[in-house]
Amino acid sequence: MPHITLPTDAPGIRGPLAFRPDAAKHLLGLAETILRQPASLEPGERETIAAWTSHLNGCKFCMKSHAAAARAWLGSERSAALDRLLAAEDADGFSPKMQALLELSRALQGCVLGVTPEHVARARAAGASDHDIHDTVLITAAFCMYNRYVEGLGTREAEEHEYELTGRRLRDQGYAPGRD
Amino acid sequence: MPHITLPTDAPGIRGPLAFRPDAAKHLLGLAETILRQPASLEPGERETIAAWTSHLNGCKFCMKSHAAAARAWLGSERSAALDRLLAAEDADGFSPKMQALLELSRALQGCVLGVTPEHVARARAAGASDHDIHDTVLITAAFCMYNRYVEGLGTREAEEHEYELTGRRLRDQGYAPGRD
Repeated sequence: MPHITLPTDAPGIRGPLAFRPDAAKHLLGLAETILRQPASLEPGERETIAAWTSHLNGCKFCMKSHAAAARAWLGSERSAALDRLLAAEDADGFSPKMQALLELSRALQGCVLGVTPEHVARARAAGASDHDIHDTVLITAAFCMYNRYVEGLGTREAEEHEYELTGRRLRDQGYAPGRD
Repeated sequence: MPHITLPTDAPGIRGPLAFRPDAAKHLLGLAETILRQPASLEPGERETIAAWTSHLNGCKFCMKSHAAAARAWLGSERSAALDRLLAAEDADGFSPKMQALLELSRALQGCVLGVTPEHVARARAAGASDHDIHDTVLITAAFCMYNRYVEGLGTREAEEHEYELTGRRLRDQGYAPGRD
């Protein structure tokens, strides 16, 4: 049971979004912008950072939803790497740049003050641009919000078979308000 | 020095917002919605939760900016209570409902999975509504994002004399995109 009465019993963030549509517009617009609009990192890489942050935060609904979205974008080789990342926190199979960005993301997820110049230097040495670093920071930060919104209101997980469909829908149709 | 080259040397979140205007639109729209639009909690109470979360996260720019906004809304008696809250983590002087919501906020700031049914029951016993609980969760969650965006990119604090002016501007003009 969620902690408050929500207008729908849909899983995860969908109940809270329906409770407060004026906030939902911005929450969904932000997700669309940072995960799916053209950027220096591919959408599959950005969804990987979203799933990784959600994994580290223990938010299973967001982790499974965004892992499914990442798999929908990534080829089979990198999908296998994603599975290892989320199962064993082993980033083998990702590019050195992604590995350094995932470390930076982990530092920021764990602590607001966690990113050091060394994290940034390692990412740059592996080829990360200002845009790559910015987007890694903002995606990690945003999922420290979305995860708390989902868990802080005590929402439920989706059924296991629902996530793959969600992932393909997020790839194909995105996060625009009005989608369900 | 921030970790990336930002288009302005303005303090805190203003540089990151200028770096990525398409995301800034949603980040500012969300702040306007959750902090300043009509809701069951007064704007001064919602700014207090924003300042409290930022204090717990160690983000001085956000803490000082939103404490100043809270003081601009609250009367002198509750501004003195806010000062005690941020200096000594002592919520004396706030209503029992606000004290329970600040405890719920602290639990969620510390851990994505930190809110228990007991936190919610204590808030309800002190008179909190579904809207009060929802907004406390979303504001706390959002500042776990804004704080990471500001600190994860290594931005600088404002000068001490700037915060009071910022607080009054946030009360009078809000967070709408296009303000500086």
